[in-house]
Amino acid sequence: MKVSLIHGPNLNLLGQREAEFYGRESFDDINRRIKQYGQDRGIEVRIFQSNHEGEIIDAIQDARIWADAIVINPAAYTHYSYAIRDALTAARLPAVEVHISNIHAREEFRRHSVISPVVAGQIVGMGPFGYLLALDAVQFLVEQSHR
Amino acid sequence: MKVSLIHGPNLNLLGQREAEFYGRESFDDINRRIKQYGQDRGIEVRIFQSNHEGEIIDAIQDARIWADAIVINPAAYTHYSYAIRDALTAARLPAVEVHISNIHAREEFRRHSVISPVVAGQIVGMGPFGYLLALDAVQFLVEQSHR
Amino acid sequence: MKVSLIHGPNLNLLGQREAEFYGRESFDDINRRIKQYGQDRGIEVRIFQSNHEGEIIDAIQDARIWADAIVINPAAYTHYSYAIRDALTAARLPAVEVHISNIHAREEFRRHSVISPVVAGQIVGMGPFGYLLALDAVQFLVEQSHR
Amino acid sequence: MKVSLIHGPNLNLLGQREAEFYGRESFDDINRRIKQYGQDRGIEVRIFQSNHEGEIIDAIQDARIWADAIVINPAAYTHYSYAIRDALTAARLPAVEVHISNIHAREEFRRHSVISPVVAGQIVGMGPFGYLLALDAVQFLVEQSHR
Amino acid sequence: MKVSLIHGPNLNLLGQREAEFYGRESFDDINRRIKQYGQDRGIEVRIFQSNHEGEIIDAIQDARIWADAIVINPAAYTHYSYAIRDALTAARLPAVEVHISNIHAREEFRRHSVISPVVAGQIVGMGPFGYLLALDAVQFLVEQSHR
Amino acid sequence: MKVSLIHGPNLNLLGQREAEFYGRESFDDINRRIKQYGQDRGIEVRIFQSNHEGEIIDAIQDARIWADAIVINPAAYTHYSYAIRDALTAARLPAVEVHISNIHAREEFRRHSVISPVVAGQIVGMGPFGYLLALDAVQFLVEQSHR
Amino acid sequence: MKVSLIHGPNLNLLGQREAEFYGRESFDDINRRIKQYGQDRGIEVRIFQSNHEGEIIDAIQDARIWADAIVINPAAYTHYSYAIRDALTAARLPAVEVHISNIHAREEFRRHSVISPVVAGQIVGMGPFGYLLALDAVQFLVEQSHR
Amino acid sequence: MKVSLIHGPNLNLLGQREAEFYGRESFDDINRRIKQYGQDRGIEVRIFQSNHEGEIIDAIQDARIWADAIVINPAAYTHYSYAIRDALTAARLPAVEVHISNIHAREEFRRHSVISPVVAGQIVGMGPFGYLLALDAVQFLVEQSHR
Amino acid sequence: MKVSLIHGPNLNLLGQREAEFYGRESFDDINRRIKQYGQDRGIEVRIFQSNHEGEIIDAIQDARIWADAIVINPAAYTHYSYAIRDALTAARLPAVEVHISNIHAREEFRRHSVISPVVAGQIVGMGPFGYLLALDAVQFLVEQSHR
Amino acid sequence: MKVSLIHGPNLNLLGQREAEFYGRESFDDINRRIKQYGQDRGIEVRIFQSNHEGEIIDAIQDARIWADAIVINPAAYTHYSYAIRDALTAARLPAVEVHISNIHAREEFRRHSVISPVVAGQIVGMGPFGYLLALDAVQFLVEQSHR
Amino acid sequence: MKVSLIHGPNLNLLGQREAEFYGRESFDDINRRIKQYGQDRGIEVRIFQSNHEGEIIDAIQDARIWADAIVINPAAYTHYSYAIRDALTAARLPAVEVHISNIHAREEFRRHSVISPVVAGQIVGMGPFGYLLALDAVQFLVEQSHR
Amino acid sequence: MKVSLIHGPNLNLLGQREAEFYGRESFDDINRRIKQYGQDRGIEVRIFQSNHEGEIIDAIQDARIWADAIVINPAAYTHYSYAIRDALTAARLPAVEVHISNIHAREEFRRHSVISPVVAGQIVGMGPFGYLLALDAVQFLVEQSHR
Repeated sequence: MKVSLIHGPNLNLLGQREAEFYGRESFDDINRRIKQYGQDRGIEVRIFQSNHEGEIIDAIQDARIWADAIVINPAAYTHYSYAIRDALTAARLPAVEVHISNIHAREEFRRHSVISPVVAGQIVGMGPFGYLLALDAVQFLVEQSHR
Repeated sequence: MKVSLIHGPNLNLLGQREAEFYGRESFDDINRRIKQYGQDRGIEVRIFQSNHEGEIIDAIQDARIWADAIVINPAAYTHYSYAIRDALTAARLPAVEVHISNIHAREEFRRHSVISPVVAGQIVGMGPFGYLLALDAVQFLVEQSHR
Repeated sequence: MKVSLIHGPNLNLLGQREAEFYGRESFDDINRRIKQYGQDRGIEVRIFQSNHEGEIIDAIQDARIWADAIVINPAAYTHYSYAIRDALTAARLPAVEVHISNIHAREEFRRHSVISPVVAGQIVGMGPFGYLLALDAVQFLVEQSHR
Repeated sequence: MKVSLIHGPNLNLLGQREAEFYGRESFDDINRRIKQYGQDRGIEVRIFQSNHEGEIIDAIQDARIWADAIVINPAAYTHYSYAIRDALTAARLPAVEVHISNIHAREEFRRHSVISPVVAGQIVGMGPFGYLLALDAVQFLVEQSHR
Repeated sequence: MKVSLIHGPNLNLLGQREAEFYGRESFDDINRRIKQYGQDRGIEVRIFQSNHEGEIIDAIQDARIWADAIVINPAAYTHYSYAIRDALTAARLPAVEVHISNIHAREEFRRHSVISPVVAGQIVGMGPFGYLLALDAVQFLVEQSHR
Repeated sequence: MKVSLIHGPNLNLLGQREAEFYGRESFDDINRRIKQYGQDRGIEVRIFQSNHEGEIIDAIQDARIWADAIVINPAAYTHYSYAIRDALTAARLPAVEVHISNIHAREEFRRHSVISPVVAGQIVGMGPFGYLLALDAVQFLVEQSHR
Repeated sequence: MKVSLIHGPNLNLLGQREAEFYGRESFDDINRRIKQYGQDRGIEVRIFQSNHEGEIIDAIQDARIWADAIVINPAAYTHYSYAIRDALTAARLPAVEVHISNIHAREEFRRHSVISPVVAGQIVGMGPFGYLLALDAVQFLVEQSHR
Repeated sequence: MKVSLIHGPNLNLLGQREAEFYGRESFDDINRRIKQYGQDRGIEVRIFQSNHEGEIIDAIQDARIWADAIVINPAAYTHYSYAIRDALTAARLPAVEVHISNIHAREEFRRHSVISPVVAGQIVGMGPFGYLLALDAVQFLVEQSHR
Repeated sequence: MKVSLIHGPNLNLLGQREAEFYGRESFDDINRRIKQYGQDRGIEVRIFQSNHEGEIIDAIQDARIWADAIVINPAAYTHYSYAIRDALTAARLPAVEVHISNIHAREEFRRHSVISPVVAGQIVGMGPFGYLLALDAVQFLVEQSHR
Repeated sequence: MKVSLIHGPNLNLLGQREAEFYGRESFDDINRRIKQYGQDRGIEVRIFQSNHEGEIIDAIQDARIWADAIVINPAAYTHYSYAIRDALTAARLPAVEVHISNIHAREEFRRHSVISPVVAGQIVGMGPFGYLLALDAVQFLVEQSHR
Repeated sequence: MKVSLIHGPNLNLLGQREAEFYGRESFDDINRRIKQYGQDRGIEVRIFQSNHEGEIIDAIQDARIWADAIVINPAAYTHYSYAIRDALTAARLPAVEVHISNIHAREEFRRHSVISPVVAGQIVGMGPFGYLLALDAVQFLVEQSHR
Repeated sequence: MKVSLIHGPNLNLLGQREAEFYGRESFDDINRRIKQYGQDRGIEVRIFQSNHEGEIIDAIQDARIWADAIVINPAAYTHYSYAIRDALTAARLPAVEVHISNIHAREEFRRHSVISPVVAGQIVGMGPFGYLLALDAVQFLVEQSHR
């Protein structure tokens, strides 16, 4: 099984930025952990990060072709990128939205996601561990759709 | 580790109700699966269901005393029960909110949760499998808080 | 034909409370009149009243099993009980919402019903006579669905 | 007893239009049924339909003089015709608002009625049968006001 | 000087309707008084009333040709008739909006006028006497524009 | 008859300020014209202007004792001074609100008056001539209340 | 192919009214041009204008019977006539909404159309030339539906 | 004099929960102090606490019969329980709403009370001492109503 | 202990104004009663009333220096005076907000207080007796802060 | 005449994505058809597509220099890209906004365009045929501006 | 060059109040620094502070006569004083609005300024140093207008 | 001291675009003036412009490493780019937001900045001169933080 895991803007700074929300583990360590976790479960995970909305859309369009599922943390684009939303709709792949911090316990604007209505579900507030749960989740979703 | 898993109103009808949102697995089968999953990971799970807001509050107040964590699917109370919210705040336990269907892809009122700001996080849209992910999540949260 | 007729909170005080809105006939007299009216038309009516949201949900879940239709006056729960709404949806029975007073001619909050979108229709502002019209209505709905 | 029954815009197309909301019975058949039902109960029903807001106001002003009660389905004018509302207020007759479909289970704008606060009550969602219930209702209202 | 004075819907019932808001003087008496008042000041007043939005628009379009000014009480159309508003804009005549009762001391919806932004001004709450003040006002406006 | 005519903030600059809205006549000339107009009709007009909300309230409280009616142009205080509103309510005198320009054809905030619901009516958009109409209006109101 | 082209209120004044928005070409000239353009493409165009909402509804109901498509400029009724909307829905014909000026660059209320959700599409801001494009558009729509 | 003092949900945890808002005195100590304070003033206070909305309504209905006044801290139900509101309206007893913390200095949702419009008044932000002030207040209200 | 008790605009008219809301006791009698009540409890109360927002701010700034606590009824300024709010914040004294009538049972605008978030609490709806309860309350607050 | 035709994000997937909204014709075929249609009318059309908001802005800035007009389908950027709006304003070229599907008959957010107020007009809901109409439209606009 | 620098309510407490927002420098020191800074640049600065909205309006009206520019920190009046806004509009002088703290990073209500639309610009969040920047700014504005 | 000065979308067109808002000085001239002004004060200013949101985020992330402060004019991104906001938060550098025109005196949407809450302050409406004031401001902020 192949998963495209996409990190949105500023997530490359993980570990260097607001530790109270995002924890102290570095971006590279998190990604290494994700890849290992996937490998242990027979999931090939390709990881992509960009601060550019357009590049994230391109990445989703690419995933349409080679991946079985998408895990996406759209970061700040969560709240306004209808363009990413349309890309996810067009991709027609099982997708899970991840947020590292509990976006419902922060500023009001972080509670509104334009992405949520077009993905299968969300995993929110579990720190980087949420990416691992998301791999379990998409594996479950893909298996279920094969039945 | 001990977990209080609380099902809100009408969830006792799982498997008999709107299969397109909630699936076909029966409430008892789901609970059996949850207990087994917990047992495999050294988690004692006590499961409670009620249609009564007050009984759910009583159950959270009980969990304060004997449990290490709470997994809760407040169902329709998600959208207005500030009383359950206050009970969760008072409990001071790691808690995860679960929703079986993707509440963001249904009626507008289902997108607003008064519970979300006071729990650690949410797992949404993964069907009954979400309860299993939630057990993993609270185990992670409890372990992390012990470090 | 069997009908579950459910009175919401404070309706047990009918006849003792705000006569300008609710009239002077006592709760027991109204119920007797309802039962008689049903009997005259071959409808067995079981009447239930509770101030407890959870008990009303339980009653709707019970009606799923034995009744052919539901007549419900959710009283104040009309305006916020998404849990009663979900119970009615799950029941999959023809249901009619009754309000004794014209809720559109009173406080603003009384104009909004979270129940209305999931029932067949409403009978509003006819005093206790509205319950009798509702029996006619559910009889019509049940007969129609049998065609 | 005399009743002015007023159909609003596009209701002349009943039976030819969106059967899922309005049923398949033709406008003429419905009116015949209404008249017969009235006749059986000693109610003379005069039926009027217009697509013109002004003609509906004229009809209500006429009813002031000869009728004992009004049954009105304002159709789309329900949602914005303060002019019809003012005519009903000025008429000082018992009036019942009828909607064929459950307006609360359709587009959001259909949930708001500017008419509801000035009539005695509403009968909603019972198909053309709602007109018959409305005749019973205004008969009840007129009798009650004579006591 | 020539003035088109236009009464909106239900104003033909003046004197017969809600005396607490609109007074007891009959529609005909008021109009006689208006004409006399105009005559005393050299103003020819043509009075028109209709319950039909379209006829009011027609009347405004006619006034464009023969009148020097418009006095209009749009009654309930005040609150939603953008069509009357556009007719007034197109007429390019000094116009004064009259309301018999103080629309700001009644229901909330009566506070909003879609007409006000396109007329010269308003005279509100002075009873039928307001029409006389409005004649003074348009006379003043016409004289002023001739300077 | 005695009238307290109260000008709100910045009206002392009339004739020196935004002529497109307020005209070119000076504040003193306007006041002279008002006094003369009153004198011709047997109305003693005392004129007061202040930029201070508190002084305007004091003036209204004074008017309670000696005046028969109030004419007030609250200027910018129109839009937020609940304190002036309460003073007018407590005064229990016929009062007319005047605005020189058509406040409905300017910025959105100028359309909302907290004063309007507690006065008898408004005269809007007639330039300084509106004060003269207001004298006629309060004279009419006082005479009417004496009947 | 037969097209019913319907002009809403005040459009009969085209060429005489606010040239900055609507241009200088007269209503009759525009209609002549429309008819010629249709004739050149084998489209019989019947043109109707009314200031009366009810007559526009009647015209749409007539078009149901004889026309293949509707081109409509509802003018001010665009913003509130749910009755015209319902007539268009009931007509079940390909329909295109035309606006001469760019309604999105004018007053806020002109941006909201209650008609748009029930027609095939809109052509906005092209002056009277928009009617010609609309003829092309409905021709395209009718041809497409025949495939 | 007899007073029914009703504590809403989670107030049984007083002293064990969020001391910064609710203080450190235990629920039992507070109740003892309330009873003593009442006894000193000739007020018999019966104290009731429940997490169940329905039980609170039952308690208010009971108070209708035996009590002279009600003191109620509806806790989280303050913000949405129209059912408790209706029970208080039906009870027709002097009632005072108490909040231990200053609800206006916390989350926005805590500022809105559906209870406030139907009680005599509120005492807010005085800690458990507020209950004592409320006893003084209802005593004053009862005495006043006896004059 | 020293208390600055501040009455906002129009409260000098107490006893002469809207007795249904504010009672019949005169302003001077109320103040005498407040002073006596204070004296009995060892509280020196200085009473200040003004219709001027600026003078109320000055008075609060003075209280900063000589008083131990503030009791304030900001009357109409409650709803918009952020300047009084800032003065209270800067004063850093225990303060209690009093309203004579139940502001939650009157016009909607009276429900919103910009003052409430910066004072310790509110006493609402107890008539002039509320000032006496407020003296008890600030005494309690001051004593508590000394512990 | 030279036209810059700009496709926004995800439009490169046309023909592969949600056929019920966007049709089955491929992106390349559509573009070929557009070019041919332009060529037949003496219009050189340069077509650009990007998922990147910044690249679309760059393209508009380029068009400022070489093009006579712009046709733009901003796709999802329609709803929030004030940056594209500013670029269009700065370009000072006749521009027409195209939407393939009827954005007013889909999700609520699709009804709001931040682009519409700064272009000449819109062509909505005509499928890819809308691009051809848009070429006619900009040709008309350019010719008109040359007069 | 002459500048009227106006401090709004409670700013006289600078240095004594909420140091986290307003710093520790005293009001007198700040004013001395402002005067010195002005003197160094050939600007005569007259400084005025008042807690009274009316006095601030008076001061602006005075500045109309003798000053070349206005620097104003309206403090809490920023958020509601349309009267100060009107005074500034009438003054027709270059004006700059200063806020010591970043009003956008505090309570929501502080983000809305009714003053901003009528001044040249704002300097926000720079502490008392902002007044010095504002002197530079008005000097720039005055020089620019002289070109 | 090192400052990263970032211009948002379309600012490269300064001098060529809407001179009434942005002035006639060219982008290059402005930048030269900024650099010179910085050099005179010992500030090394690196200037960056992009129409791409992602590139602006990249630039802010770069500034984190080498700069002491940020001056940013986010142009249209001001109103929706939560991604730029998050980048600024993560950068933890003193930052000042500049707007050339007075954004509060233009379209409503320009009044809302998602950036303002996370920067130190704003300088608005001073034309390109605002950049120079911003250099003074960040120098002040950096010096202050070193104390």
